[in-house]
Amino acid sequence: MPSRRPWTLCLDPKPFLYPVIMAGGSGTRFWPLSRHLFPKQLLRIGGNETLIQQTMRRVSGCAKPARVLISTNAAQAELIKGQLADWKDDIQDNFVLEPEGRNTAPAIALAALEVLRRDPNGLMLVVPADHVVTGQREFEAAVGLASRLAMEGYLVTFGVKPIRPETGYGYIKPDSKALLGKKGTLRGYRISKFVEKPNAAKAAQYLKAGGYYWNSGMFVWRAATILDEIRLHQPGLGKAMDHMNDMKTAGATRQAIDEAYRRVPSVSIDNGVMEQSSKSAVVPVSFKWSDVGSWGSLDEVAAKNKAGNVVTGRVIDVESTDSIVYADRRVVATIGLNDMVVVDTPDATLVCPKSRAQDVKKVVEILKQQQAPEHLEHLTVQRPWGSYTVLEEGPGFKVKRVTVSPGGRLSLQLHHKRSEHWVVIAGTARVTRGEEVFDLRVGQSTAIPVETQHRLENPGTETLHIIEVQNGPYLGEDDIVRFKDEYGRATKS
Amino acid sequence: MPSRRPWTLCLDPKPFLYPVIMAGGSGTRFWPLSRHLFPKQLLRIGGNETLIQQTMRRVSGCAKPARVLISTNAAQAELIKGQLADWKDDIQDNFVLEPEGRNTAPAIALAALEVLRRDPNGLMLVVPADHVVTGQREFEAAVGLASRLAMEGYLVTFGVKPIRPETGYGYIKPDSKALLGKKGTLRGYRISKFVEKPNAAKAAQYLKAGGYYWNSGMFVWRAATILDEIRLHQPGLGKAMDHMNDMKTAGATRQAIDEAYRRVPSVSIDNGVMEQSSKSAVVPVSFKWSDVGSWGSLDEVAAKNKAGNVVTGRVIDVESTDSIVYADRRVVATIGLNDMVVVDTPDATLVCPKSRAQDVKKVVEILKQQQAPEHLEHLTVQRPWGSYTVLEEGPGFKVKRVTVSPGGRLSLQLHHKRSEHWVVIAGTARVTRGEEVFDLRVGQSTAIPVETQHRLENPGTETLHIIEVQNGPYLGEDDIVRFKDEYGRATKS
Repeated sequence: MPSRRPWTLCLDPKPFLYPVIMAGGSGTRFWPLSRHLFPKQLLRIGGNETLIQQTMRRVSGCAKPARVLISTNAAQAELIKGQLADWKDDIQDNFVLEPEGRNTAPAIALAALEVLRRDPNGLMLVVPADHVVTGQREFEAAVGLASRLAMEGYLVTFGVKPIRPETGYGYIKPDSKALLGKKGTLRGYRISKFVEKPNAAKAAQYLKAGGYYWNSGMFVWRAATILDEIRLHQPGLGKAMDHMNDMKTAGATRQAIDEAYRRVPSVSIDNGVMEQSSKSAVVPVSFKWSDVGSWGSLDEVAAKNKAGNVVTGRVIDVESTDSIVYADRRVVATIGLNDMVVVDTPDATLVCPKSRAQDVKKVVEILKQQQAPEHLEHLTVQRPWGSYTVLEEGPGFKVKRVTVSPGGRLSLQLHHKRSEHWVVIAGTARVTRGEEVFDLRVGQSTAIPVETQHRLENPGTETLHIIEVQNGPYLGEDDIVRFKDEYGRATKS
Repeated sequence: MPSRRPWTLCLDPKPFLYPVIMAGGSGTRFWPLSRHLFPKQLLRIGGNETLIQQTMRRVSGCAKPARVLISTNAAQAELIKGQLADWKDDIQDNFVLEPEGRNTAPAIALAALEVLRRDPNGLMLVVPADHVVTGQREFEAAVGLASRLAMEGYLVTFGVKPIRPETGYGYIKPDSKALLGKKGTLRGYRISKFVEKPNAAKAAQYLKAGGYYWNSGMFVWRAATILDEIRLHQPGLGKAMDHMNDMKTAGATRQAIDEAYRRVPSVSIDNGVMEQSSKSAVVPVSFKWSDVGSWGSLDEVAAKNKAGNVVTGRVIDVESTDSIVYADRRVVATIGLNDMVVVDTPDATLVCPKSRAQDVKKVVEILKQQQAPEHLEHLTVQRPWGSYTVLEEGPGFKVKRVTVSPGGRLSLQLHHKRSEHWVVIAGTARVTRGEEVFDLRVGQSTAIPVETQHRLENPGTETLHIIEVQNGPYLGEDDIVRFKDEYGRATKS
């Protein structure tokens, strides 16, 4: 007896699913813990893993890790690879790099083209790298239903039941008369309307009325469908993306393709496609979700002590309540705070009421205008071979602690303006200095004169730590000539 | 025609006056800016000079600097000498060192014995090192009248007119019928009663009623009078002090005298003598005074911006009001604070409402219980030859920036457990290493192996800065054997 259902409904969608982790955002809303070059997804929030690690683990429940694509940019790719080291072999060829941030639609189109290349029937599960989801089983069930609807040609988003009159999210009203499918207690509907971030009165009304859901920014669709819908509703973007794809097929240089991407219009997938499309659908979900959009939102995801405080690090508190206190290496003393946020990092400290946490962006804006480094990166800077931390700098000198991972190797380099002194404090250093190559152990040291080719590597199995003292009239990171580099950064070959 | 007034009133008291700066307090009320070993008097509050510098300048208007005695302890004497370098030659023999803190009465007795040694008719102007006084002329006038009364045998304190219902001070009610003397608009009276720190209702009542004055903790009296009154009202203390004085006259060792001092009872001059004595008097004063007893009291003495904030250092503020924000080397961002205190130092950060600033002592107590270094001293530690700052420490290593003043010379020393690497980043270093003596200039370095005698000195005219990297299984400051020392600290001669 032949089924009267369309073929797609008979098919298990799971083998077609490609999770796409959107990890290109620059994060300043968690400043000073996040920085332009160290965004929120790399932070340990609401768990022992960082948000991107949690995300990777979450989507690995929906598809094999080897099918997970990471949409990001070159600046962040190395950091992300470091954080996703557990899945290193699975994902090494799965990075879809945006040459430049152009909002969500172009990044999604780029990922869709990659999925299509791998499977013409491929489905995409698009998830931001920096959200928190609690309820793995509920998440996978929702993805299951959404995938079925996606195979039928819908653009499916997940609707989260509001728990407060939030004015920071978009809202979605399902069309309760247009049921598209169900599975257990889950339902999928066409969308009656999208509501942009409402004012406080509207938000309160939606919360009271019910039937409105937060737009979680997670989606499931066929790669072919989303590209078609982009072409339909954003023809400029569609053409540009197709042109880029043709260039790639025709073997254009990386540089030419990047150049083309930079001319692509900046469009959000929500405004630009979902809200326009007749194929938009929503699955109201039961898992707990937070976009952890500000320090205040930590309340939703972090563990609290009896007094309602979220406390990290060496904090001495006297009678504070409902506050968020983050200490890094220093001791932070708080007395009688209520509903406050205190975040202490090696180079910057933030203090504000939770209700003002959104205004962190104003602080970051001021720092940017001042060209202050504190908006851009941390004192500890991650590198493909390890990391370095500036311990102190002053006129004519800079002191760094440098760590090199086992097997890590800095480029063969020289500096025109500075000499360097290295003292090994843990592990073994292999030093190239001019024509010499020698090993240094703990307590041994060497000096690298100006204009001398040198290289530092870790031949051992434990992390190498050295203290580097730089001397010279100019100590910028750009005074470097790279001769050989394991990580493709050589200035000269 | 012979005068009918006592001879003392005809005499100018000024040549008899010895200011005594009480600088022995350990200051934790301004934690984390003050530390047990770096008390409030060493902080720059309410001016460009530190409190003890301001105090020295103030009393220098009342007597020659060479007559100013400094009552303190050995731990603080070097720091104070550093801060009072402008008066170095005047005060070098004027330090009266308490072997141990025993409250104000024994310290004052010790100073009184020293004044008596210099002049049997000597008057003492006793002032805490860490108060702020605004109105130099008014101060000197009040000291003038108080000195005249002191010559007549009174124990004179200064009464400050209350400007708020303060519960943290003692109050004094003058006996308006017992006028002892006047000068211009100033009056001196016998004291009708002392009132210990009142509750809020009492304090409000005193403020409203008028006729009550804050006890400022500054006094003028004859050295002979205060010693007599101590003997009368605190006979135990009196005997102990006289015994110590006899020991000193008889040539007892420093150690024996110190030992005797440790057995002296701990008594405050207010409770123990002033409140008991029939000779107590008060001069209500017109100068502005603050004991800057907590972060909140900065309001009374520091300059405020338009929003009512007292701001120091690199602070990025968005719409805060009436707050105190202190940044050191890091950027501190504050948003929407009101009536708050934020103090950021290299190793500790404090955040509290102004109204809770008194509870800083609870934080310090907790740190003390935890044996945490942050209650005791700063990352930058002052030494007779300069200072050092711990930049970072970890298992098996410590990194310091060491500064040596021109002509400064560390002890000839060795360490059993650690090697040291020195890199010069400013100035010139003269290094003794084993049998060698050599100079290092900027960018040059040397290594000092374990068990090797070494010495660092600054032969130049600019401050020497080096980065020192220590390696070894134990890096405590007590792993040091001193052979020769300019500052009397040699372990072996």
